[in-house]
Amino acid sequence: MIGRLNHVAIAVPNLEAAVQVYRDRLGAVVSAPVDLPEHGVTTVFVTLPNTKIELLGALGADSPIAKFLERNPEGGIHHICYEVEDIDAAIARLAAEGARILGEGRAKIGAHGKPVVFLHPKDFLGTLIELEQA
Amino acid sequence: MIGRLNHVAIAVPNLEAAVQVYRDRLGAVVSAPVDLPEHGVTTVFVTLPNTKIELLGALGADSPIAKFLERNPEGGIHHICYEVEDIDAAIARLAAEGARILGEGRAKIGAHGKPVVFLHPKDFLGTLIELEQA
Repeated sequence: MIGRLNHVAIAVPNLEAAVQVYRDRLGAVVSAPVDLPEHGVTTVFVTLPNTKIELLGALGADSPIAKFLERNPEGGIHHICYEVEDIDAAIARLAAEGARILGEGRAKIGAHGKPVVFLHPKDFLGTLIELEQA
Repeated sequence: MIGRLNHVAIAVPNLEAAVQVYRDRLGAVVSAPVDLPEHGVTTVFVTLPNTKIELLGALGADSPIAKFLERNPEGGIHHICYEVEDIDAAIARLAAEGARILGEGRAKIGAHGKPVVFLHPKDFLGTLIELEQA
């Protein structure tokens, strides 16, 4: 069912410092930051040859990553995103097996304009998983 | 400097249950488990089209992931591994910039027979990074 690893998302307390780590220290290609106010984050993409790393900074008072950053003040891996061909079919299969789907249990348009859904970490080895329709 | 994302490693308390999550629930291709007693882990690889997920179970009393699993009893992402062309050059560059290299500050042969080194999470956005010479 799952296909490519679309990205690994790392929440960071300071996006400018995070860009320095990936661009200057690790020598990677890094995008300009993009504010996504409707998602409460500012994103920077690190382009690797086979996938990408998404650096997430909090944007606004109600950022969905604010609590994560309180618990992880230096930052940390927030989620990993796998591609699926048909997100509704994926949700139906997972729900039928008893896995918990976050939100309202159905796909929404995510930060990159594609249908996404998040899965409960307790049902997936302690990792927050995003599925994105490729 | 960094190249491909070689793998994302997820430490898990029960490798058999973890295989069920990735093989049966998420429908991925999963390898047979391999014990690596000299590294204190048993590994299972999940093959994705563009990279792989490494499921890590503790092996033996002194497993290097035992403390992580105490803190994260349901499991969690333990590290991410980036490929580099020349690991000694990478270590020299990072050390010159003041980044902390774990272990003795030089590459060792890792679990997959290639030179690897781990970088201090406090200098890399709260994420444990493994570099592997491709």
